Amino acid sequence: MERVPVLKIGDMLLVSIQVDMEDQTALNLQEDLADKIVATGCRGVIIDISALDIVDSFVGRMLATIAGISKVLDAETVVVGMRPAVAITLVELGLSLPGIRTALNVELGMALLARARFEAEGGGDAGEDDETVAAAS
Amino acid sequence: MERVPVLKIGDMLLVSIQVDMEDQTALNLQEDLADKIVATGCRGVIIDISALDIVDSFVGRMLATIAGISKVLDAETVVVGMRPAVAITLVELGLSLPGIRTALNVELGMALLARARFEAEGGGDAGEDDETVAAAS
Repeated sequence: MERVPVLKIGDMLLVSIQVDMEDQTALNLQEDLADKIVATGCRGVIIDISALDIVDSFVGRMLATIAGISKVLDAETVVVGMRPAVAITLVELGLSLPGIRTALNVELGMALLARARFEAEGGGDAGEDDETVAAAS
Repeated sequence: MERVPVLKIGDMLLVSIQVDMEDQTALNLQEDLADKIVATGCRGVIIDISALDIVDSFVGRMLATIAGISKVLDAETVVVGMRPAVAITLVELGLSLPGIRTALNVELGMALLARARFEAEGGGDAGEDDETVAAAS
């Protein structure tokens, strides 16, 4: 049974998806990631899909589920490394990955997460957060 | 044909090996990595093998080749995430991965690379900030 490793880098978790996601692999990943977020207290999750030729509705749903789980655990998710062809196909299929932030590569994803957290902590005012920023004393 | 993605993080390259390394996959990885070292000027390469159940002589040789190529291109290689069972098997088989540095996980690998570079530069006033010190926490 394949397990996708979850790597801790600084205060972020990095997942590089390279294998075909079957049901069990996806469930394992969700579980491992949730465990690791809780164990490490990381506030950001970066999912690299640069190895994927195809992102179908199953993978799209899995990414959305992971983003949802992370959100509940107070971590932000960014999907990075999407290939141009994948982006084109996604849109043509009508799958626009709602609720999932994206960035071009791991570094830009890290920058996005750092900025999002800075704003969430009251460091900046402008932001398109839909969540109420709780009293930044 | 599978390609293992090479991710740039800061001034290091990260490779997470998750698929079975066949001849062509290994050759592609060596090529991609060499290209990326040259393109980015990165001085460190981290290879995560935490997803591997088995490290046989083929994989061991591939790791050694990658370390050799990186060395020639003035980059240091660290293999991280080896499972305990893999370490036991490797030693039992007499494969001790000569010439390959190892670390327990990605973060320790990064710290090792930063320290190695710091020392190589004479421990003095190189362009990089005091990230070696700051990274530890």
